[in-house]
Amino acid sequence: MEKAFVGSCIIGQSGGPTSVINASTYGVIRTALDTGCITKVYGAAHGIKGVLEGRLYIMDEEDPEELELLKNTPSSELGSVRYKIADPDRDDTDYKRLLEVFRKYDVRYFFYNGGNDSMDTCEKISRFMQGAGYECRVIGVPKTIDNDLAGTDHCPGFGSAAKYIATSCMEVSKDARVYDTGMITVVAIMGRHAGWLAGSAALASYCGAGPDLIYLPEVDFDCERFCAGVKALYERQGKVLVAVSEGIRDAQGRFISEYGAASAQEKDAFGHAQLGGLAVYLAETLKRRTGAKVRGIELSLLQRCGAHLASKTDLDEAVLAGRTAVEAAVAGESGKMVAFERGSVGGYVCKTKLIPLSSVANVEKKVPLEWITKDGSNVTQDFIDYALPLIQGQPERPVLHALPRYARLKKITAE
Amino acid sequence: MEKAFVGSCIIGQSGGPTSVINASTYGVIRTALDTGCITKVYGAAHGIKGVLEGRLYIMDEEDPEELELLKNTPSSELGSVRYKIADPDRDDTDYKRLLEVFRKYDVRYFFYNGGNDSMDTCEKISRFMQGAGYECRVIGVPKTIDNDLAGTDHCPGFGSAAKYIATSCMEVSKDARVYDTGMITVVAIMGRHAGWLAGSAALASYCGAGPDLIYLPEVDFDCERFCAGVKALYERQGKVLVAVSEGIRDAQGRFISEYGAASAQEKDAFGHAQLGGLAVYLAETLKRRTGAKVRGIELSLLQRCGAHLASKTDLDEAVLAGRTAVEAAVAGESGKMVAFERGSVGGYVCKTKLIPLSSVANVEKKVPLEWITKDGSNVTQDFIDYALPLIQGQPERPVLHALPRYARLKKITAE
Repeated sequence: MEKAFVGSCIIGQSGGPTSVINASTYGVIRTALDTGCITKVYGAAHGIKGVLEGRLYIMDEEDPEELELLKNTPSSELGSVRYKIADPDRDDTDYKRLLEVFRKYDVRYFFYNGGNDSMDTCEKISRFMQGAGYECRVIGVPKTIDNDLAGTDHCPGFGSAAKYIATSCMEVSKDARVYDTGMITVVAIMGRHAGWLAGSAALASYCGAGPDLIYLPEVDFDCERFCAGVKALYERQGKVLVAVSEGIRDAQGRFISEYGAASAQEKDAFGHAQLGGLAVYLAETLKRRTGAKVRGIELSLLQRCGAHLASKTDLDEAVLAGRTAVEAAVAGESGKMVAFERGSVGGYVCKTKLIPLSSVANVEKKVPLEWITKDGSNVTQDFIDYALPLIQGQPERPVLHALPRYARLKKITAE
Repeated sequence: MEKAFVGSCIIGQSGGPTSVINASTYGVIRTALDTGCITKVYGAAHGIKGVLEGRLYIMDEEDPEELELLKNTPSSELGSVRYKIADPDRDDTDYKRLLEVFRKYDVRYFFYNGGNDSMDTCEKISRFMQGAGYECRVIGVPKTIDNDLAGTDHCPGFGSAAKYIATSCMEVSKDARVYDTGMITVVAIMGRHAGWLAGSAALASYCGAGPDLIYLPEVDFDCERFCAGVKALYERQGKVLVAVSEGIRDAQGRFISEYGAASAQEKDAFGHAQLGGLAVYLAETLKRRTGAKVRGIELSLLQRCGAHLASKTDLDEAVLAGRTAVEAAVAGESGKMVAFERGSVGGYVCKTKLIPLSSVANVEKKVPLEWITKDGSNVTQDFIDYALPLIQGQPERPVLHALPRYARLKKITAE
């Protein structure tokens, strides 16, 4: 074990919010506050942008009970960001500024809580600091509902989103079958390139009330075959519930959501197309083909911030990921991301490990094709066996007036 | 107290599902099974249509534990219907058929679980049976997330939907404010003519994270004023969360959802326009006016079947309504609906009473104008005080694999 650095730390949040990213951030903050060698704990406002602009909240000043409530507070409480940092070999302006800030606040530990793009940012910072000879340990804390990070069995945030999706699909399944007239319902689920979230809808069917058909982006989407499949089922059973990933694409790689969505031309800062409106588009298409009554439902933001349905397993692991990051950094690790490994014997056991940031950045882990049925319209039992343990348990949920009681941080800014 | 009729009973469900309509139906079934004078308990498949077609499930044959699970099962487990029964004075075909079925199964009690239109059906049946000299007691059991039934303080189903809406708005509010860029989010909430559900979004704001602006159908919607109001707020604070009722209309009475929604021309069996797509339409309108990043979210079916967030108060009252209906009928009442009365002193107390079906049928109770702010963009503290007690308490929620365990009825059909 290497000598612990004495100095302050920064924790930043990045990318899309989840129900439990604040739980990971809590894990970092709490452990850092309790660690003798970390002299000050800063939370970056809006991730790397807050560091660049020197907007740092002093976490030492927060009420411990409010910090604890972060575990049940959805979204990114410190503020998030989608800022693509340049490659340091091409433009090191941002990095020089980061170094200035790190020096000013004597930052010796940098923790970044995010997904693919954030691990890329993290890796670049780690590389630059090392090149500049500035002693600072950099650890990534995984977060994404999409569950698409490489090198880890699963990601904090996925289990809770999966539980929200499965529960909502069960409820919609009940509602959408209530009349004795025919009805086709399409539910669109997040997941730009990987079908982990859409596949989770199968947990609802496994429990007796869920989608009849599920389409993942891992398999080329053929609109004709889709319509024919739904129509056949509709004619046989009168009611059909379909779950689709927002990321489904045709054989040419074009997002199906772009077929109909007016706003599909827009791209975000990372060049990703903005997806939306897919459920309504497919529902309308099916209506023309079948004459059925249809309804399209977009789970939208609800699925990624539905903290009231958080999985206890997910929440506990999110805290664990944050704690592990700090412990690893103090022990001398750097340039790594905390990852999960699943025990292979007996019931579900989750252990942490560290993997190089460079092996995670910009790689996307997809649903294995052998976990998708041959006709591409559902997932197999292997998928269920994988996902089911991740949604278990109901955490305690502090409420006020029967509604969630979220953390109220003071957010005192360092001068 | 009149003499109890000896004979069988029918319970039917009608109209849009809720999270707790099955709890009311459970209240009817359980009480009827336990009442000596009711010889057989039939559940009508798809409400009045099932009675007309003689599709009756024998509730006596069900496992009591599965019946108990009805309390936590959303949607209408017996099946629902939107069937407009004719006026008996103009066309009594359906009524003669009903009488046949009632005679065949010796039905002496008829309970109908539904909203406005269902109470109208109930009233007509009661009137016809009386005119025909057939001894049968008819009691309506209220149900509607819309909370728009006259003569009752509130309706079973509303509290749970309100809790779902408030919780979801809190979560969306957290998510929609996460980036340091501007953002306008529009959430569309059900409620065709009354703003009770949209107003419930204010409970989220009351608890610290909710919409900045709320628009109810009780006030004419002026698109220009709306855009100006949102724009001003956007320029001041960068992030704006708006909640709108699907039922908002312009001064000419035209639904705003019809401005943009492609499917708005369709009408359901009662002549109501099918609403939908409003959030996206308003979000796109605001985008053009402000240049802001926008997102439209439709709570869609989720808000009316979100049983995992049911209010215990609502659920208990739903069971109570069913039980009261049976007890009242056995005691000699007929042609009435069970209604709620709120105690005027001390904490929240809810008592039941009976009101004539004719006073409920086809009347819509709206949000009092004095509970809406003068500028029409929010509700007042009076609304909060009214709605807050109705969302209290978290019922026990049976789960299997961490997902809801719903009732599994055998549904054995009477020959």
